[in-house]
Amino acid sequence: MTSSVSISDIQKAAVRIGPYVHRTPVLTCSSINRLVDAEVFLKCENFQKTGAFKFRGACNAVFSLSESQAARGVVTSSSGNHAQAVALAARLRGIKAFVAMPETAPRVKKVAVAGYGAKIYFCEWTMEALDATAARVAEETGAVFVEPFNAPETIAGQGTAALELLQDVANLDVVMAPVGGGGLLAGTAIAVSGFSPATRVVGAEPATADDACQSLKEGRIVPARPPKTIADGLRTSLGDLTFAVIRSHVGQIVTASEEAIVAAMRYVWERAKIIIEPSAAVPIASLLEKRQEVLGQRIGIILSGGNVDLDCLPWAIGSAHE
Amino acid sequence: MTSSVSISDIQKAAVRIGPYVHRTPVLTCSSINRLVDAEVFLKCENFQKTGAFKFRGACNAVFSLSESQAARGVVTSSSGNHAQAVALAARLRGIKAFVAMPETAPRVKKVAVAGYGAKIYFCEWTMEALDATAARVAEETGAVFVEPFNAPETIAGQGTAALELLQDVANLDVVMAPVGGGGLLAGTAIAVSGFSPATRVVGAEPATADDACQSLKEGRIVPARPPKTIADGLRTSLGDLTFAVIRSHVGQIVTASEEAIVAAMRYVWERAKIIIEPSAAVPIASLLEKRQEVLGQRIGIILSGGNVDLDCLPWAIGSAHE
Repeated sequence: MTSSVSISDIQKAAVRIGPYVHRTPVLTCSSINRLVDAEVFLKCENFQKTGAFKFRGACNAVFSLSESQAARGVVTSSSGNHAQAVALAARLRGIKAFVAMPETAPRVKKVAVAGYGAKIYFCEWTMEALDATAARVAEETGAVFVEPFNAPETIAGQGTAALELLQDVANLDVVMAPVGGGGLLAGTAIAVSGFSPATRVVGAEPATADDACQSLKEGRIVPARPPKTIADGLRTSLGDLTFAVIRSHVGQIVTASEEAIVAAMRYVWERAKIIIEPSAAVPIASLLEKRQEVLGQRIGIILSGGNVDLDCLPWAIGSAHE
Repeated sequence: MTSSVSISDIQKAAVRIGPYVHRTPVLTCSSINRLVDAEVFLKCENFQKTGAFKFRGACNAVFSLSESQAARGVVTSSSGNHAQAVALAARLRGIKAFVAMPETAPRVKKVAVAGYGAKIYFCEWTMEALDATAARVAEETGAVFVEPFNAPETIAGQGTAALELLQDVANLDVVMAPVGGGGLLAGTAIAVSGFSPATRVVGAEPATADDACQSLKEGRIVPARPPKTIADGLRTSLGDLTFAVIRSHVGQIVTASEEAIVAAMRYVWERAKIIIEPSAAVPIASLLEKRQEVLGQRIGIILSGGNVDLDCLPWAIGSAHE
């Protein structure tokens, strides 16, 4: 199976979403460089609108719809960053959005989605309940479903972050991205293999949710077991499309322990002075644990997002309010 | 009394410290703009080396020393960001640094100062003890004292942040900076009045530590009463030099309540996804409280620093570890 997303799709996505997304900065931090013995370039998607790279893919999907499709509105299901991304993209296009969300999702996420004008349908916090609710809403309203990761438009949109990174930083030896459903990693891999073929692409995932690593080894999609990781954005299994792209374009998937994820997150907060969520810390955590040989290399890292409940920080568990 | 610091001093400082300081980015955040009904440009000195603008002034002071002065080493007293700034500047110049610090200063600050190779002299946490200890060390070692704010080299160094801001963002209506000892505000005022005379300069301080505001009103330095503010960088009184500059160049000093400072700090963390310390939040806090009319204006804000104890956040007081 060949990839159905090309570098030209990523270039078109960049033009399509250009008026709506932030061109996020690339930051460096000498403490982090010293810590991992390499030169690290942080592509700050935590500064992206809605606080995560997800807005790129959602925006590309929503603005790729024909007028008649768009008129029906869009629907999605998500407990996380994709919900806000679709809600804002729909508002920007001036169309309706319907979102299936777990009743028990963090209040701040519900408020954000509602604030963008989306209609929320609450359900239980299971994949089945979310899918069923979204399907029912699509049936009732005629709205078009916006895939969180396993669709060409979503992957092409996510790839625009790596495209910008490559434009801003030359001669990268490695580009790293976290992998959950695989949309970001797949888009990154297509962009890098097209525009900087000498650069390696490495995915990173929690050791307790290493289904992408297993999938690459076994040559088939190994589903994520009910995963216990603090990296809440990376609890998803790969899709057929993202798996195919990752299989053909990604050299390596590394893992990180939960302890290293929390330590890396805190280190970035303390030293780089930016807020990243646990999922975004996973590539740096893998570097802390020396899961690959990068001594002295130039490493681009896509910091996937920065949506964190400030009342419930991982290093304060036990002392948090809730 | 006229200012003994000119725009030419700031330009020379920019050249002198250029190889050592970060040219920090200017970020924008649409949520903040909506919140305060203005267009806000955040000059991110929280990303500066040592985590605060203080490194600019310390670096300019240390690199302004003659060879024979420098050979004697430098000494300072500080419970805060100035200690780290002097320690790093001395290391970069390859000279000795001696720092008087309170025994009870946050562990992370002691570790940072020692990590830069400075020798620490512990004392009690009073101005008198800090001054006496620094004087004794200067006497014993012959080291040159580096002023935290009330010296021309320090003021000129701090002014380079505003210089960069003006180079990066045109047509600002207002530039705001927090005011404690007044080094940052004085340097900012000289830079702005020289390079963008139509732009107003506004200082911001905690309402519970409004000695700068009182000093401007009374036309003399009103000392800070033992101030109870979370903005630990702004508990200092003005010096004669900073007061003279502020008096002649600053249009207005506004205040912010403690509640607004914490709310503004948290809002910046949640929306702009960057870590700022309470002192850096004071200008935004004053905007939240509408302490001046800025509707629709272009406002540059110098975010002074980002050094925060992550185990002791102001919105988690009562649930913190310590």
